Amino acid sequence: MTETFHIVPAEQHDALVAAAYQHRGYTEAEAADAARFCSFASRHGVRTHNALKALHLDELFGSGSGGCVPGAEVRVVENRFAASEVWDCGKKLGQSVAFAAIERCIALADEYGIGQVSVDNAFHYLWGGGYVLDAAQRGYIAYTNCTAGLAEVVPFKGKHPTLGTNPHSWGFPTAGACGFPIVIDWATSVVAMGRVQQLKREGKPLPPDAAVDADGNPTTDAGKAKWLVPFGAHKGYGMALINELVGAFIGGSLPTLRSREIPEGEKRTPSFYFQVIHPDAISGGAFACGRSRDGNVKAVIDDIRGHGNEGIFLPGQDFAQAAERSAQCGGLLFTPAEIAEFNELAAEVGAEPWDLAALPVAG
Amino acid sequence: MTETFHIVPAEQHDALVAAAYQHRGYTEAEAADAARFCSFASRHGVRTHNALKALHLDELFGSGSGGCVPGAEVRVVENRFAASEVWDCGKKLGQSVAFAAIERCIALADEYGIGQVSVDNAFHYLWGGGYVLDAAQRGYIAYTNCTAGLAEVVPFKGKHPTLGTNPHSWGFPTAGACGFPIVIDWATSVVAMGRVQQLKREGKPLPPDAAVDADGNPTTDAGKAKWLVPFGAHKGYGMALINELVGAFIGGSLPTLRSREIPEGEKRTPSFYFQVIHPDAISGGAFACGRSRDGNVKAVIDDIRGHGNEGIFLPGQDFAQAAERSAQCGGLLFTPAEIAEFNELAAEVGAEPWDLAALPVAG
Repeated sequence: MTETFHIVPAEQHDALVAAAYQHRGYTEAEAADAARFCSFASRHGVRTHNALKALHLDELFGSGSGGCVPGAEVRVVENRFAASEVWDCGKKLGQSVAFAAIERCIALADEYGIGQVSVDNAFHYLWGGGYVLDAAQRGYIAYTNCTAGLAEVVPFKGKHPTLGTNPHSWGFPTAGACGFPIVIDWATSVVAMGRVQQLKREGKPLPPDAAVDADGNPTTDAGKAKWLVPFGAHKGYGMALINELVGAFIGGSLPTLRSREIPEGEKRTPSFYFQVIHPDAISGGAFACGRSRDGNVKAVIDDIRGHGNEGIFLPGQDFAQAAERSAQCGGLLFTPAEIAEFNELAAEVGAEPWDLAALPVAG
Repeated sequence: MTETFHIVPAEQHDALVAAAYQHRGYTEAEAADAARFCSFASRHGVRTHNALKALHLDELFGSGSGGCVPGAEVRVVENRFAASEVWDCGKKLGQSVAFAAIERCIALADEYGIGQVSVDNAFHYLWGGGYVLDAAQRGYIAYTNCTAGLAEVVPFKGKHPTLGTNPHSWGFPTAGACGFPIVIDWATSVVAMGRVQQLKREGKPLPPDAAVDADGNPTTDAGKAKWLVPFGAHKGYGMALINELVGAFIGGSLPTLRSREIPEGEKRTPSFYFQVIHPDAISGGAFACGRSRDGNVKAVIDDIRGHGNEGIFLPGQDFAQAAERSAQCGGLLFTPAEIAEFNELAAEVGAEPWDLAALPVAG
C-alpha cells in the first residue's frame, strides 16, 4: 500500500513552522533556522526529522522543559588554536547552532584546509546528515557527531545502557562525480528505539543482535527488547564510544545522566562536534590518465558500481531522489495525517489551516 | 593449548630488522623507522604486523617488485592551506612516511588545533592503529585511514569486489582517564582474507554475512567463500566507501586496479590520510562538579563501564595489556616458529642467528 502525499509549497510550510517556533518564544532568526532545516529535511525525504518531530521534541525536551533556551547567545570560548573553535551554546536551538557551526567550519576550511567547531551545552540538532549534506552541496567534505539525548544502548558484551545511539554523519562533494553528494549518515545502534516499538506493535521480530532484554541477554522478541545494541559488534561499539569520548573532552557529562534526573552540579546536555575539509586541501592533483579531480572521483565511483555491482546503492542516493521528487512536485510532500498535525499546530499559533482538498496529490 | 613465547631484547630485534631493510636497499633512516615500527607493533601484541610480516610484504609487493622505492624522497605538494599538507611520497617506505606525517600533523595541531596530511603514491603503512596509538600516547587525538592494497571486498548488495578492506584507526589520549589510550582500529570487512583461509584449512564455518561465493551469494562455507563483505551491512559499507572517496580526492586510482596489472597511465598505489587534533582545541573547560578534563573523561569512561558493565572491554585495552607484559618480560615476545623465521632472515643478511636456547621463555 502506497501512502498518499500532498504537495505543500515550501513557503507555506516555512511560514507556519517559523510561526510555531516564534510562538514558543524563539527569536525570528531561530525560527527561520528551524523552518529552513525542517524544510530541508522534508525536501530530502527525511520524515523522521520533519517539523512535526522537531516541534514535538522541543515540546517534550526543549523550550517546554528548559532543555533548550529560546534566544540564548552562543559564547565562543577563547583558545589559542587558529583553525578550531569551541562554543558554549547555552542550550540554544540546535538547528541555529549547527548551521552557524558548519558555516564557521567552512570559513576555517577555506583558510586552513580544515576547521573544527566543538559545542558544549547543546540541545539537539535533529539530523546531522542535513548539515553535512548542506556543506557537501556547497563543495565541502563535512563531518559531524553528537552525543544522544538518552542512554539506551548497551556496550558490546555489556548489560546496561551507558551509551547513546550516537550518530555519525559524513558528506562528500560528489555531485560532479555521481550527481549528488554521498552522505554516510547513521546511528550506531542497529535500529532506533522507535523501530523496536513499531515491531512490537506489529508483533514482528527484531533483527538478530539488535537488542537485549531487561537482563542484558540478546533477544529478537520486540516485546522483550529493553535496550539497543551497537551495530557490527565491537566495531560499531567503537564508533559509539567515539561520540562519548569526544563529548567528554568537549565538556559533556556522564552518559547515563542524559536519561534521568541529574545530581547537583552534573550536566545533562549533549555535545556537538563539527569538522569541514576543503577538498583542494587534501588533493595532490596528480590524477591518472589526465583526469580532473571530479573526473577521478567519478572514475572511482563508477568502478565501485561497475563489474556487476550496477544494482548497489550509494549512501545519499535516497536523499537525492527525494529532493528530485520534491522539485518535480514543486513543494514538500506530507501525508494527510501529517497535514492534520500541521493544522493542529496552525490552530495553536492562530494561523490559517491548510486546506487539504486544495493541496495537490503528488504523482 | 597456549603458545610458548621467548623473550627477545628489543635492541637485538631492531638491529636485525634494520639490517634486513638496509640489505634490501633502504636507507639507514628508513631501516630505523621500519625497525621502530615493528618493534612497537610486537611490543603491543600485534602479531599480524610484526617485522616478519612487514618484510614478507616488502618482498612480495614492495622493494621486491617496485611497489616501494627505497630512498624515495617525499615531495610536499604546494597548497594555500595553513593546516593541511599533501605529500607525494613516491612509493617511499610506508612506516617512514606515516611516522613523518603524524609528526607533521602534531605540529599543525599544536598551532591550529587540528592538522591533516594526505599522501599520494603511497605503499603500505602496515598498521594504522600503531600511528594513532603513538600520537595518543603523546597526548593527541589522532585518526588515519588508507586504501587497501587489494580489492577484495564486495559492496553491500553487490557481487564483485571493488573495495579494499579499508581500515580506520582512531586514538584518544585517555591514559590519564583509564590507564591507556583508547584505540579504535579495524578493517571494514567482517574478517580478513587470511582468516577465511585459516577457517578453510581448519574446516570451520565463517561467521554469517562475512563472505560471498564466486557468484556473489552469501556463504558461511569457508571453502566456497571467495570475497569479503563489509561489517554491519550498509553502515560498514559506508565506512569502507569513505577510504575510497578520500583516496580518490587525494589522487588514488580505480580500486579494482589494485589487485591486478594496470593499464597504461593508471595508478595502483594506495593513499594515506592522517589527522591530529589537540585535545585542548576541542575542550570548553566547563566540566561538571569541578572535574578536570582528564577527570571528566575518566568519569565518562567509568560510567560506561559501570552499572553492571564491568566486564566490557575498551578498545586498545588489549594493546596496553600486551605492552605491559612485554615490559614485565623486558623484551619482545616471539614463538619458536617466528624466531626460526628471524634466523632465516639473519642468514639472508649475514647476521648472527638468535640462540633460541638462550632466549628466556615468557612466564
